[in-house]
Order: sequence, then structure tokens, then C-alpha cells
Amino acid sequence: MPVGTQGTVKAVSPLELHDLGAQIILGNTYHLHVRPGEKVISRQGGLHKFMGWQRPILTDSGGFQVFSLARLRKVTEEGVHFQNHLDGTPTLISPERSMEIQRDLGSDIVMAFDECPPHPCSYEEASRSLELTLRWAARSKAWWEREANEDRPLVFGIVQGSSYAALRERSVSGLMEIGFDGYAIGGVSVGEPESEMMRAVESAEAFLPLDCARYAMGLGTPPQMIEMIARGVDMFDCVLPTRIARNGTAFTRHCCLSLKNAAFAEDPGPIEEGCECYSCQNFSRSYLRHLIKAEEILGLRLVTLHNLHFYLKLLRTARNSILEGRFSEFRREFVSNYRPNERTSIAS
Amino acid sequence: MPVGTQGTVKAVSPLELHDLGAQIILGNTYHLHVRPGEKVISRQGGLHKFMGWQRPILTDSGGFQVFSLARLRKVTEEGVHFQNHLDGTPTLISPERSMEIQRDLGSDIVMAFDECPPHPCSYEEASRSLELTLRWAARSKAWWEREANEDRPLVFGIVQGSSYAALRERSVSGLMEIGFDGYAIGGVSVGEPESEMMRAVESAEAFLPLDCARYAMGLGTPPQMIEMIARGVDMFDCVLPTRIARNGTAFTRHCCLSLKNAAFAEDPGPIEEGCECYSCQNFSRSYLRHLIKAEEILGLRLVTLHNLHFYLKLLRTARNSILEGRFSEFRREFVSNYRPNERTSIAS
Repeated sequence: MPVGTQGTVKAVSPLELHDLGAQIILGNTYHLHVRPGEKVISRQGGLHKFMGWQRPILTDSGGFQVFSLARLRKVTEEGVHFQNHLDGTPTLISPERSMEIQRDLGSDIVMAFDECPPHPCSYEEASRSLELTLRWAARSKAWWEREANEDRPLVFGIVQGSSYAALRERSVSGLMEIGFDGYAIGGVSVGEPESEMMRAVESAEAFLPLDCARYAMGLGTPPQMIEMIARGVDMFDCVLPTRIARNGTAFTRHCCLSLKNAAFAEDPGPIEEGCECYSCQNFSRSYLRHLIKAEEILGLRLVTLHNLHFYLKLLRTARNSILEGRFSEFRREFVSNYRPNERTSIAS
Repeated sequence: MPVGTQGTVKAVSPLELHDLGAQIILGNTYHLHVRPGEKVISRQGGLHKFMGWQRPILTDSGGFQVFSLARLRKVTEEGVHFQNHLDGTPTLISPERSMEIQRDLGSDIVMAFDECPPHPCSYEEASRSLELTLRWAARSKAWWEREANEDRPLVFGIVQGSSYAALRERSVSGLMEIGFDGYAIGGVSVGEPESEMMRAVESAEAFLPLDCARYAMGLGTPPQMIEMIARGVDMFDCVLPTRIARNGTAFTRHCCLSLKNAAFAEDPGPIEEGCECYSCQNFSRSYLRHLIKAEEILGLRLVTLHNLHFYLKLLRTARNSILEGRFSEFRREFVSNYRPNERTSIAS
């Protein structure tokens, strides 16, 4: 899912997203609540109509941003009291408020409200936080049952539990008792080493039902996604392809290219030979480097288009290789040809 | 002509420009010389190939930017010595160098190198400058004759003479003696009152040949262009539609709208009712205001598309009304319905 934080996938139009083959995008509940406000969007006919996007939208719960962006945060049983990062308005987001906001946005997949503990986090703290998240998950689900809305969106629960396998298992079983339409793995890619992140996913996924979508939140680099798919994950959202594009960094199947590099000043080739995206079909690395050095908007637009094309195509290819029974081969080949690069760290 | 200062019309792709119906765009010789350099562009196959634009390109002479941007400027008979605004590299641009650069860019219409005197300017100073510009114009033309290039671009001369009718007349007759493929009126919209600008155009155009294109440089607002067309001007270039778009200001046939205005926060209508552009067909003022307030790139993209559509359609409508013999009616109606607005001043 390309990430549309503030009601737009950064630098990209809905028509371009459609042509890229994006099937679903993510909207950020916290950001849209703060600006322009879910009531404004609701009165404009909902987020789909507001932003001109007809396909599905998943909204996060707001929890992650409340814990990463908001100020003067105070967590109580009821919910989280905070002052927003824009104008400091004192706000309470509770499970019920999060559901109301996501309902007003007109989301197709809503996320239960969760607490996101920081990394590192003690076992005791992770355990306390996890139990709170489970109680909030039950209240999130109950809110939709009270609404008794026939057209209600899918509701996903979020697995927490930090790096502790026992807590991840406890989280999954608690969520499954409540019963959700799909399950997300949260609290990953929050600063922990990659091996720890993989173990957190593994210790959750073993207990997740096979017939529900599994969604790893806020991930990842190309090989991380392929490794997660190998572990049974179905869905991802990540700011990486759009964010690093705005810094002039492009994905290829081998590595990341920083297009600012002087080596590309007179390179007549595309970002990636054989790529079908608009940028690669029409523009040289030389031109893209010039646009990025000159801080031209078209430069970051073109690299964003390429990176989204790359991500969406990578996931389509992975899906097809599963359907055709040759995923292991695809995984081995892709991961062994890909050279990780320091520039591709994620910070959401 | 939409303005493509650094090898891109700001925020717009060549495909979008094509779809907007732009027939020709302007490239800035000074900017492209400074970065990435005309030799880089030439080795990449010329500006058309570099930026992916197949239709005609007019390049300015570099004179205007040398006089408005460059530092430590010294004008001699040979040309202008200066340090560029980016890294201070000492540079000479002479008429011959300007022609070489424009040749390397692969321009379709090149401008003779000119001196741009500031406003206000004494009669003596304007007269001295004008005579220098005429000698430079002769050298510009002679350079192309020495090249003896069968496929040479069209070469346009630039009328100077500040606000002095006698000097404008002298400039035109001097240029016509040399003989150019078209004639531009320069040194307008440099800070003088609009009435003075109109008189400067009038005092030049009366003496220009009827069978050559006439181009008013760096203009203008919608009613200014219509008034210039009434005075026989055929071509314009202006940063206004793209520049004010990036500030969230949109043109309509009645006035300019600042989309940041709180009045638009919940306005479900398009920028302009009945407009066929992508923005107006798909997005509300409410959404555009949100994007602009949130400093989202899509916001300035959408307003830029609208403004370019507005400008290009206005000029197509003016042209058709001339062909159909009803230009006076069109002019009267458009100008009387348009309410000028302080936000639309031009500074190139």
C-alpha cells in the first residue's frame, strides 16, 4: 500500500496511482484528524471522494503517530490524551474516537486502536502495554458491533508484544478471542535490529489464522518484504519508496541509486534498464540528476513514480510466483542479487 | 509559452504539457548554461531529447538573467563579464557565446543577445544601451550566417528603448535593417506602470513588419495579454501561471483565487465551474486548500495544471476569435469581466 499520509500519496496524483496498478492505499488517521479534520472530509463525502481515489483505503488507528509525533502525551485506560504536533490542541483519542474518525473518513479497512511501546522495552512494560492494547482492541471491535452497520469496513487487530515471543503469542490469542477480519503485526521496524524484527514476525505469524489477511505495518525494504512474504505476510505499507524518492534515491532490483551522484551526470540510460515506468521510458539518469540537483519538483515526481512502480511490481511478481509455485526460487534469486544499502533505513 | 527555466516547466511533466496543448515552451539560456551546462545537454542529444519534449523550444538570450541574477557584472563592447549566481564562476557571455549556447541546446527559436537596462532609465542611458544592443544583434545574426547551417533555427531580434517612443522606433528600424525572422519587445514589465508598458509596446509595434511574429517578453496577466493581442502581439512567455500556482493562487475568467483562503475550507466546487482541466474535473476547492495548507506537492501540481490550462485556453480562444472576426467583442467582454488583483504582479 502506497502511503497517503495527508490525503495524498506524496507527489503523485490519483490517476498516476491508478495507472501504477495500486490496489489500495493507506491513509493516516492522526494526520487527517489534525488537518483538515475528519468532519470536513466526511461533509465532502468521505476520503475517497475528497482525494479522488475510488479503490480501497486502509486507515491506521492513529496510535503510531500519537506515540511518535504528539506532545504532552498521557496514556490512561480510557485512551491517550495529547496535544497535536501542529497547533497543540489538547485531544483525547480513545478506541471509540479512533473508530469514529475512521468511520467518518469512510475507510474500507480500519485498524483497532493500539499502544505502540518504544524500543527497547522491558518484558514487564511490553506485557502491560499489550494487555492494554487487547482491552482497547475489544472496545474497538465492540464499537462496530454497537454501530450495527451492514456496510461496516473490515476491522483488523494489531499484534503487539515487542521482541518477546511469548508476548507475541499472547497478543495473537487475545486478538483471536475477540475476532477480527484480519491481523496486523505492529511494533516492528521501530529501531530494533532486522533479525529481531524477523523473529517478532515469526513468533506472531505461527499462531495467526490461515484464512485471514496478515499485514506487517510500516515495512519494509525490498528484501525485507520478500522475507516477510516467505513468513506468510500478505500486506505491507511503507513510506520508503516515496520518501527516499524525494531525496533523489531510486530502487533497482540490485540496489538503491542516489541519483545525485556525480557518476550519473552524463549517464544517458534510464534508472533501470528494461523498467516500464514513465520515468524509465522517457528520461535519462543525466536528466533526473539535473532535476534533483536543481531541486525541481519534476525530479522527485519522476523518482517517486519509478519507486512506486518498482514496489508494486515487486509485490505483483512475488504474488504471481506463489500462484505458479515458484516463490522459493524467486525469493532466492531476488534476495541474493540485492545489495542492501545504508540509505534505505525506514523511519516512519 | 509556458516557461521551462531549468529544463522543466516547474511541477509539470512533458506528457502533461502535451495534453494541455502547449505548442511551444521557453528555455532559459542563462540557467541551462550555469546548470547542467549546454555541453552536457548537447552530449545528451539536445534540450528536446534531454527533457523529453518533442515540440518547439524558444530560448532566450540569457541577457535578462545576466542583468537580474548574476553578480559582479561588467558590460563591455565584447559582452557581459559576470559571476554566476550559483557558484560564482567568472563567465563572459557575448553575442557569439549566447548563440553558441543556444545552438548547443538545439533551440528552434533563438533570441539575439541584448542588454536589459533597468527601470527607470534616463534617455541618454537608454539610447546608449539600445545602440549597444543593436551592435550585439548584428553580431548575433552574423554568427548564424557564418555557421551557414541549413537547419538553423529562427533568429529573433529584441526591441529595446525603455519608455521612450523615439528610441523604440529607432530600435525597430535598426533591427529591421539587420533583418530577423521575428521581433520581440523586450525591456517591458521591468517595474514600470502598466500604462507605460502599453505605450512602449504601441510605440514599437507600429513599425514592426506585418509578416513576422511579434513576441512580448515576460508578459503578462490575462487582461494584459488580451490588450497586447489587440495591439498586434502574437507570442508571450510568462512565469505567472506556474509561479503563483505554487503559492496556491489560481486564475479564473473573473479574478485570481487564493486557495489558502478559509472561505474555501469546505467548498465542494472546482476552482472554476465548467473548466475542463484535470484539477477542476476531479478535485474540490476544499481538497486543494487542504493540500496547499499541508504543503503537499500534489496541491501545487494541480493548481499549476489549472493555471496553464487557463492561459493556453485563453490564448486559443483569442486566436479563434480573431480568425472568426469577433476579437473586439471577445476582448471587451473578457477585460470588463476580469477584476485585477494585487496578487498577480509579475517579477521574472
